[in-house]
Amino acid sequence: MEKFTFVKVGGKIVEQEDSLQRLLRDFTAIPHRKALVHGGGRLATQLAERLGVESKVVDGRRITDEETLRIVTMVYGGLVNKNIVAGLQALGVNALGLTGADMNLIRSEKRPVKEVDYGYVGDVKEVNATLLIALIRQGIVPVLAPLTHDKQGRLLNTNADTIAGEAAKALAGHFDVTLVYCFEKKGVLLDENDDESVIERLDRATFREYVKQGIIRGGMIPKLENAFEAIDAGVKRVIITKASAIHSGAGTYIY
Amino acid sequence: MEKFTFVKVGGKIVEQEDSLQRLLRDFTAIPHRKALVHGGGRLATQLAERLGVESKVVDGRRITDEETLRIVTMVYGGLVNKNIVAGLQALGVNALGLTGADMNLIRSEKRPVKEVDYGYVGDVKEVNATLLIALIRQGIVPVLAPLTHDKQGRLLNTNADTIAGEAAKALAGHFDVTLVYCFEKKGVLLDENDDESVIERLDRATFREYVKQGIIRGGMIPKLENAFEAIDAGVKRVIITKASAIHSGAGTYIY
Repeated sequence: MEKFTFVKVGGKIVEQEDSLQRLLRDFTAIPHRKALVHGGGRLATQLAERLGVESKVVDGRRITDEETLRIVTMVYGGLVNKNIVAGLQALGVNALGLTGADMNLIRSEKRPVKEVDYGYVGDVKEVNATLLIALIRQGIVPVLAPLTHDKQGRLLNTNADTIAGEAAKALAGHFDVTLVYCFEKKGVLLDENDDESVIERLDRATFREYVKQGIIRGGMIPKLENAFEAIDAGVKRVIITKASAIHSGAGTYIY
Repeated sequence: MEKFTFVKVGGKIVEQEDSLQRLLRDFTAIPHRKALVHGGGRLATQLAERLGVESKVVDGRRITDEETLRIVTMVYGGLVNKNIVAGLQALGVNALGLTGADMNLIRSEKRPVKEVDYGYVGDVKEVNATLLIALIRQGIVPVLAPLTHDKQGRLLNTNADTIAGEAAKALAGHFDVTLVYCFEKKGVLLDENDDESVIERLDRATFREYVKQGIIRGGMIPKLENAFEAIDAGVKRVIITKASAIHSGAGTYIY
């Protein structure tokens, strides 16, 4: 099967011109078919501050009220997405920026209110990849913004890691899919104070053991849970690595 | 040849929720293949005001400095475009939001500085419609934002009337194309104080005569020049009409 690499990059990298340009060059160097999923949370927070809109956060998660939804639609769907697309086009990569609303790619449902009302946040329900796959086979490189829709006219703010995982799963039957999650470190660390202590390979049993011991914790836990789910759904490999290593193969391999 | 209708709507209509919803329903009622091109200038001006960014205008044209380019990228490429896409998806229309950077659809060049430096404003140089045509044949309804790119990584602010005209021309060899420019009146008026004095049919000779007599003036002149250029390039008909009449066939026919 033809190889396909899904790269997810967080806000920090895409929000600064120099690190973004470096990322786009590294991404371009991936020799086969590929797609990029981006965040942009810090830029959204900055715009909210300039507009005097309070960013509400509960347990590290942003509450997306009406005004915040407008802001993330502008920042994720417009500013960040279209600048990445234009940057890739300059490098000869035929990029196409997409949200989950475009071509009805990702349908989600507003997260049910339990202890917390997260507002206009979407939980992914369905990925319609048929047209996307046809476009990829024609040489298009999708650039996905972390927005989905409910098919009732409402855009929904959606976690970029989740979008990367769900989209990678939808392509798994059609390509030999590698999913790369970029973050600040070289991989998942055995000792968070030692940047060189990268865990090279991680299976689910070891993951559970490390969580129990407190070696793996915080935001890395849902990220890795997404990773294992992707493996279960047919994604060949998930790599957690530094953005500068996306075409070198270094990092933590999840299998 | 299969029929295709290109509808261009200005800012006023897409910026208010009730008129936008009505437009989307009217647009959905067009029984054949179609695309929408939108503006959004007023929302961009509003956002600029809230951010304390001065909107510079010379001879009725906006000057697009660096900060204004970021604002229009957010408003046109994000807020307006993605809300239209989500709204159409809710009506069962398989919309895909695009700027000229996506799929390298519209390449432009920064307008040369003569008497005025318009800043990051693009003059259209090339429309690459091959993939777009393939998508349209698969049922996709493109929604175009008034942004293009220079293929060197720079997005450029581009007149929505021009984008509609250029895109319609690029499809003219493949479809029987109707281009509809929506504005506030029922058509081009013989007497601007009489909303019922719609000119039903307008050819180039009559247009020139009306311009000489001062009957047609202001912003209507470049709009009509775009219209005649489109006709010359193979577009079958251009209609200037009210947004509520886009599927009824009323308005001024340019031929």
